[in-house]
Amino acid sequence: MTAPDKHPLDLEMHADRLREECGVFGIFGHPDAAAITALGLHALQHRGQEAAGIVSFDGQRFHSERRLGLVGDTFSRREVIDRLPGMSAIGHVRYSTTGETLLRNVQPLFAELDPFGFAIGHNGNLTNGLTLRRELVREGAIMQSTTDTEVMLHLVARSRKPRFIDRFIDGLKALEGAYSFVGLTNKKLVGARDPLGIRPLVLGTLDGCPILASETCALDIIGAKYVRDIENGEVIVFDDKGAHSQKPFPLVAQRPCIFEYIYFARPDSVVGGRPVYQVRKTLGAELGREAPADADVIVPVPDSGVPAALGFSQETGIPFDLGIIRNHYVGRTFIEPTQQIRQLGVRLKHNANRAVVAGKRIVLVDDSIVRGTTSTKIVQMMRDAGAKEVHFRIASPPITHPDYYGIDTPDRDNLLAATHSLEEMRQFIGADSLAFLSVDGIYRAMGYEKRDPVRPQFTDHCFTGDYPTSLTDQTAKSHAPRQLSLLAEAS
Amino acid sequence: MTAPDKHPLDLEMHADRLREECGVFGIFGHPDAAAITALGLHALQHRGQEAAGIVSFDGQRFHSERRLGLVGDTFSRREVIDRLPGMSAIGHVRYSTTGETLLRNVQPLFAELDPFGFAIGHNGNLTNGLTLRRELVREGAIMQSTTDTEVMLHLVARSRKPRFIDRFIDGLKALEGAYSFVGLTNKKLVGARDPLGIRPLVLGTLDGCPILASETCALDIIGAKYVRDIENGEVIVFDDKGAHSQKPFPLVAQRPCIFEYIYFARPDSVVGGRPVYQVRKTLGAELGREAPADADVIVPVPDSGVPAALGFSQETGIPFDLGIIRNHYVGRTFIEPTQQIRQLGVRLKHNANRAVVAGKRIVLVDDSIVRGTTSTKIVQMMRDAGAKEVHFRIASPPITHPDYYGIDTPDRDNLLAATHSLEEMRQFIGADSLAFLSVDGIYRAMGYEKRDPVRPQFTDHCFTGDYPTSLTDQTAKSHAPRQLSLLAEAS
Amino acid sequence: MTAPDKHPLDLEMHADRLREECGVFGIFGHPDAAAITALGLHALQHRGQEAAGIVSFDGQRFHSERRLGLVGDTFSRREVIDRLPGMSAIGHVRYSTTGETLLRNVQPLFAELDPFGFAIGHNGNLTNGLTLRRELVREGAIMQSTTDTEVMLHLVARSRKPRFIDRFIDGLKALEGAYSFVGLTNKKLVGARDPLGIRPLVLGTLDGCPILASETCALDIIGAKYVRDIENGEVIVFDDKGAHSQKPFPLVAQRPCIFEYIYFARPDSVVGGRPVYQVRKTLGAELGREAPADADVIVPVPDSGVPAALGFSQETGIPFDLGIIRNHYVGRTFIEPTQQIRQLGVRLKHNANRAVVAGKRIVLVDDSIVRGTTSTKIVQMMRDAGAKEVHFRIASPPITHPDYYGIDTPDRDNLLAATHSLEEMRQFIGADSLAFLSVDGIYRAMGYEKRDPVRPQFTDHCFTGDYPTSLTDQTAKSHAPRQLSLLAEAS
Amino acid sequence: MTAPDKHPLDLEMHADRLREECGVFGIFGHPDAAAITALGLHALQHRGQEAAGIVSFDGQRFHSERRLGLVGDTFSRREVIDRLPGMSAIGHVRYSTTGETLLRNVQPLFAELDPFGFAIGHNGNLTNGLTLRRELVREGAIMQSTTDTEVMLHLVARSRKPRFIDRFIDGLKALEGAYSFVGLTNKKLVGARDPLGIRPLVLGTLDGCPILASETCALDIIGAKYVRDIENGEVIVFDDKGAHSQKPFPLVAQRPCIFEYIYFARPDSVVGGRPVYQVRKTLGAELGREAPADADVIVPVPDSGVPAALGFSQETGIPFDLGIIRNHYVGRTFIEPTQQIRQLGVRLKHNANRAVVAGKRIVLVDDSIVRGTTSTKIVQMMRDAGAKEVHFRIASPPITHPDYYGIDTPDRDNLLAATHSLEEMRQFIGADSLAFLSVDGIYRAMGYEKRDPVRPQFTDHCFTGDYPTSLTDQTAKSHAPRQLSLLAEAS
Repeated sequence: MTAPDKHPLDLEMHADRLREECGVFGIFGHPDAAAITALGLHALQHRGQEAAGIVSFDGQRFHSERRLGLVGDTFSRREVIDRLPGMSAIGHVRYSTTGETLLRNVQPLFAELDPFGFAIGHNGNLTNGLTLRRELVREGAIMQSTTDTEVMLHLVARSRKPRFIDRFIDGLKALEGAYSFVGLTNKKLVGARDPLGIRPLVLGTLDGCPILASETCALDIIGAKYVRDIENGEVIVFDDKGAHSQKPFPLVAQRPCIFEYIYFARPDSVVGGRPVYQVRKTLGAELGREAPADADVIVPVPDSGVPAALGFSQETGIPFDLGIIRNHYVGRTFIEPTQQIRQLGVRLKHNANRAVVAGKRIVLVDDSIVRGTTSTKIVQMMRDAGAKEVHFRIASPPITHPDYYGIDTPDRDNLLAATHSLEEMRQFIGADSLAFLSVDGIYRAMGYEKRDPVRPQFTDHCFTGDYPTSLTDQTAKSHAPRQLSLLAEAS
Repeated sequence: MTAPDKHPLDLEMHADRLREECGVFGIFGHPDAAAITALGLHALQHRGQEAAGIVSFDGQRFHSERRLGLVGDTFSRREVIDRLPGMSAIGHVRYSTTGETLLRNVQPLFAELDPFGFAIGHNGNLTNGLTLRRELVREGAIMQSTTDTEVMLHLVARSRKPRFIDRFIDGLKALEGAYSFVGLTNKKLVGARDPLGIRPLVLGTLDGCPILASETCALDIIGAKYVRDIENGEVIVFDDKGAHSQKPFPLVAQRPCIFEYIYFARPDSVVGGRPVYQVRKTLGAELGREAPADADVIVPVPDSGVPAALGFSQETGIPFDLGIIRNHYVGRTFIEPTQQIRQLGVRLKHNANRAVVAGKRIVLVDDSIVRGTTSTKIVQMMRDAGAKEVHFRIASPPITHPDYYGIDTPDRDNLLAATHSLEEMRQFIGADSLAFLSVDGIYRAMGYEKRDPVRPQFTDHCFTGDYPTSLTDQTAKSHAPRQLSLLAEAS
Repeated sequence: MTAPDKHPLDLEMHADRLREECGVFGIFGHPDAAAITALGLHALQHRGQEAAGIVSFDGQRFHSERRLGLVGDTFSRREVIDRLPGMSAIGHVRYSTTGETLLRNVQPLFAELDPFGFAIGHNGNLTNGLTLRRELVREGAIMQSTTDTEVMLHLVARSRKPRFIDRFIDGLKALEGAYSFVGLTNKKLVGARDPLGIRPLVLGTLDGCPILASETCALDIIGAKYVRDIENGEVIVFDDKGAHSQKPFPLVAQRPCIFEYIYFARPDSVVGGRPVYQVRKTLGAELGREAPADADVIVPVPDSGVPAALGFSQETGIPFDLGIIRNHYVGRTFIEPTQQIRQLGVRLKHNANRAVVAGKRIVLVDDSIVRGTTSTKIVQMMRDAGAKEVHFRIASPPITHPDYYGIDTPDRDNLLAATHSLEEMRQFIGADSLAFLSVDGIYRAMGYEKRDPVRPQFTDHCFTGDYPTSLTDQTAKSHAPRQLSLLAEAS
Repeated sequence: MTAPDKHPLDLEMHADRLREECGVFGIFGHPDAAAITALGLHALQHRGQEAAGIVSFDGQRFHSERRLGLVGDTFSRREVIDRLPGMSAIGHVRYSTTGETLLRNVQPLFAELDPFGFAIGHNGNLTNGLTLRRELVREGAIMQSTTDTEVMLHLVARSRKPRFIDRFIDGLKALEGAYSFVGLTNKKLVGARDPLGIRPLVLGTLDGCPILASETCALDIIGAKYVRDIENGEVIVFDDKGAHSQKPFPLVAQRPCIFEYIYFARPDSVVGGRPVYQVRKTLGAELGREAPADADVIVPVPDSGVPAALGFSQETGIPFDLGIIRNHYVGRTFIEPTQQIRQLGVRLKHNANRAVVAGKRIVLVDDSIVRGTTSTKIVQMMRDAGAKEVHFRIASPPITHPDYYGIDTPDRDNLLAATHSLEEMRQFIGADSLAFLSVDGIYRAMGYEKRDPVRPQFTDHCFTGDYPTSLTDQTAKSHAPRQLSLLAEAS
């Protein structure tokens, strides 16, 4: 099975979004383990749309189904779920951050260790994954995927500790970067969050069975109860005897990724105790206070800008209205007519709602600007629809630095804010005015007075350049060019 | 190719929506005719998601591609468009109103007449289609589909008039009911709208080439200019010599279907000169005046209730907020875990936004109630999320009568409002209060003082029982049971 | 579903074979009607490999499955057979003689007539099919396929006779050319063979149920008993009351196609009372008498030449041996390496058996020569393998005239024997000697003294130019160019 | 992709054949490397029909395509070959001997070693594969397939030698059993044959480029020249500097598998200098001398018995004729009608040629008997067709012992000859007489006076129980049950 063709037009719009990373799910001891995992992954679909996989264990054998495409394309079918028997399962949705999107890269990955099997799914990115990989290969390890997750499999396989959990922790200790893992052995469901808790992981319960999931929305879809967030640096194991938690790393304060709030998490999820939708409305209100505009209507860029636009509207008293209509049947990019159609790319997904926009001074509200190409087109679409003035407001600060923890950001050169002043950005986008929320504005919206420059409360390097861990692979990069797998396979 | 499996859960939610009927598109004389038609159909996807087809003519040969599934599943691919060469094309998206969804029912249909070929796509439903079909079969006509559209093909084929347009009009004159046709011959693009103009059809232009489409949003996606609506009872022909319009029927006042405004048309379309989004906001505002509520927040049922909820909010001053979050990755129904999960069906598509709803008195706003099953679940979902009071407001009157003009309504027995009083409906749904917009409220929102009982301005039988044409097949039905095709084919 | 790609190399070898036409099968009153029909079609696969179809009737509804590809690709699967319920079924395998191989051309064709349904499958070709088609279209008939078979459907539909069988015979009377029909209505299985009996059709019985099939091998596979051949000009009907046979045409002597013996029928079939395998051996023996050769070994061109080569060997006493080995995994043509490989096309299917051939004087025996391109390559392959002398012997006369009765022969210009003398053919092929069986040699092998020039016992125009019926479409052709359907469809 | 369904009927006939094992092919330095490999694999298709794969190297990257199904299903298509660029390639066809037929088991397998990539394809079976696998897993190796071939990958990966070839030989030295390997690195094509040369491997040349292949027929298809057989215990490497051969094992006499001659190799191949077709004819002639029969006609069981039957016929003077006709369109098993059809399974592939058989005393000649179920049915089919006497002659000795070197034989309990006396076998099969070729008869046919009991010239344990290597896994089996992978995956 090959990846669906991508057309330049579509890539362009795609390229102007931060790519969400991955989502994980696991359940232990439930007779409908695979069906529930499929539903949980469906709720986490926004975290990864390129591939999905589930591994179940039936008491004797592991079963694995991994496919390119959406969860519903494969895992909604009875015959697929029937091929995943057993009371325990873990699942994964993936947008590729490292490794090409090939079937052999789709998680959960599995290894038959001695004397047990072990499956693992990973959300995040290891900043020393490439370095570890090279060491392992040099020692005779055979890598089948080009994911950094496989490194963890080999580390566990090579640990000489007798107990599984000690081998697992041996593996974790070699890692650097961001990770939320779910793992499944013949006897245990295991979860782990990196020492800073960069990527999210929550614990829930359904019919008395423990569930691990990237977000609470995956608990809601199955009617499971939220218990608590897995803590930064926590390793938790569920087996027939119950739950066992430990913190094998030196204790440090948590520093979750601020982008989960701004961008990635579903608005109906609660992350780190904060309802995401309310955070986004507050970001919009904060933005309304910092950078108001004299205008007739607040128009969200759908759907990402809606909560912030509502907050902005409520703060400023300017009415909120849908000046852009989104086509719900997206996902495919069409052949572009040879006789050029202006702005086709953007129109496949959006259309101006002329009745709202024509003759008005509008404030466009979005959650972020990455490359700026889509923003440019949307401003132009508003002008074509007769907007008198177009003010652009962004409910987060300028993105100036790339991410290495599981978010697919462009290189610095392609980040608009990394190479343009505010005024240059305004000109590029073609807006009458442009404003971003300040960094401290975010922290105020999160309930702090301001960013703590010594121990920042969040991972926020994309806005500040302050990376929370060392970046071993990046440092090495200048000396030895990245050279992951030599093998390209399409099947 | 068989239709995707439908699971009871999904059918249940499906069954509680009015099904949108069909959409048509045609273009004449453009070098990218098929690619443009594909884009136009994509913009009309909301009018029919079960199948799509395009027929093009390359000066010598007709080419046809018809498939089950979404437009983007097939017609986004270069190799498919390459199999549709030519400067003229028509296309169709379908949700089956009559006839099973088999490939041979997918439009446009084609016939090789003498001495020309003729392809046709149809939005609407003939109320004497079955009667005509029987007469034709009795005379030796061989039907290949179970669509009423094929009847029109045979009528044209059997007309003895020498000119195509006269044969086409011969066909139209035998028809009763609702239709917007687009047709393509070796030399002409033709459009026609029934004498009352029940279903919409608009004329646009791109690079000087004429375009026919069900809605203006199909013009917007390709940057085409809107020219005017095709009038009720108008037949229009485009060929190398230009456009020629005629009105072969006795002139009567138009009476377009009110449901296009309430429900079917995309909010960014302009139908009959009225922006649909604004109509819906006005319906919501009118509802706010007729049936206000003492509440803390206005919550739209996404996405159908959003414009009316905004209008209701602006009219009443109660803040608008997203108390229900929609999962954008829908379309598939999942295997239900054997250990029952409450309300799984509704949660696949929606989740309560507890932060907005908990402890609040909320007003749910939707566009209509059909069977009421979904409404019941959404009210319960709001209560589960902690809503203190749930007031339900519907921005249209109770639906008491089925449609026969291209909308797939349930039988009368299954229309909640046909068998329940208002108070019974409230109890069924479980809301603290329930109110519908009045019939005159619609007409006020459309700019009239009230409904003209003698010559109603719109086709509104679903609310009033006042059907605008005779219903030959329905009358015949009691005597001779419907017995369409005996042939079941899956390919 | 689109037709598999054909590569030039493959077409070349294909083009050098006569294409077999079609096969038909029908059974009445058996609980496993569809499964048995599938097996019967599998046994008739050699008569048509491009598509297959089955129509069944379950007492209330007709069911149809028609697919491109081999019988076993589709009809071996339980879910397909399960979609064909009922006690009666007819089936068809097709190699396209007229009409492109599109799904809508795959038979059996079906029409809902009044008041019954009618499905039909056809082996043969109508020599006035195009003429009839034009008349019907002029009168308003709508053709969905480009097959001549559909003409018969329309003729039956338009007949005003009250009884089905009279309408069926009305249709037959308009036809000219070769046909063996099987048909199925709500109540009857019907078979018919053209007045000369050009194409075969046999009657068998299984568990007391009547079966119609193109060849006896289709009876053998299911263990059915052969009863008799349907006679030339016979129409036979089976229904709940039993069998009824009639001969509605003026009686003439039968004149079956000689090519069924030489070429098309399976060697284990018995056609017109003669075992095909024995006929072919006798043709080879006759050839050995007419044109012996001084050689060391008789080598058949596999597999078509094997029986004749055995007969030749037994007649001449020269040992028979497999000097050419056939690859059983054929059916696909491979990408040709850009760096030319000599004779790749022929080697995909055949390889010289050097151990048999090297240093020997060999006699290659084949059943016929069409274009001669494959023969040329096989002679060269023998020489490359070290054959000292290569004598080519053909167990039928030179093909000088095209067929119009269901065999796909090239135009006259491309028939080697139509444009070359014997010596020119020998040079073209590169053989040391070349000989064909004489026309009278065939008749001797069939048990006659010689061909009766007044009333030839067989249809043999390909060798003699003596066409047994008028050729209406061919005569018309010069005036009005053939212009079948304008519609190209790939689905 | 899942394996096609197998129906009991089909399995029964399948189960009564020895399964051929695998075929390998490799080419170095040719611009059409992948296309040529595809053709070579097509010629080797008889050695494995369940899956096929090709790995190419383009100077920078390895490319891999592996699929279930026939070579022609996948590798005939331009787009697949285009995804395999480069001047070197190896390929593999597989019938699973160890490991389920899952996509991840399809070869060539690939590993990224340090600092090179390495792909490998294997024909044969390791008799200590399971034992080695367990040791490796215990040391932390992660196995992705359930093939014994992957063991070799890990052995090479773990060798600490600096040069590739030394690591490769390190790997070989750990192996026991039968193997012919082709391998590909960034710089080299490598071939190796086990110390006894049990499985075949030949060297050819095309346009000056070296080729390795299991059989000479793979050279013939591309017009390549045969150079020589790779010798037992030989390791040969091709790179830009030329060829380099070595023999790293203690020298022993070769002992190739006799079954390649009797059964597996294509008749047009030359194995170990002997034309396979001639060997089989000689086996038949030898059988005619050892066990003549008083009969009217010699009938081969198609196609396996044809050469031996010709030899038997020429030796005995009894005429050879095709008394059984094979349906060339095999490969699928059909739904069996519920109303039982006798002998359906055998009739899908064969039909009696009654004209040859009826009233005759026949000698059936086949190459071997495994379980005897098919032989029983064929004897019955001959009797049903009217044979007066049926004498069965087998051109090899009784199979009394299973194979462990790459041939899929049933357990001893299911080998007819292991549990029945000759007379019991005759009764089981229902023949009038039954005879096998003697063991010494084989050796005579191979040109020896008799089998050398001290140093047998061939691997012949299936007839003699004399296994040529130790059988480590078999010995271990009684203690520790086989427990290959715990992972079942269908993709």
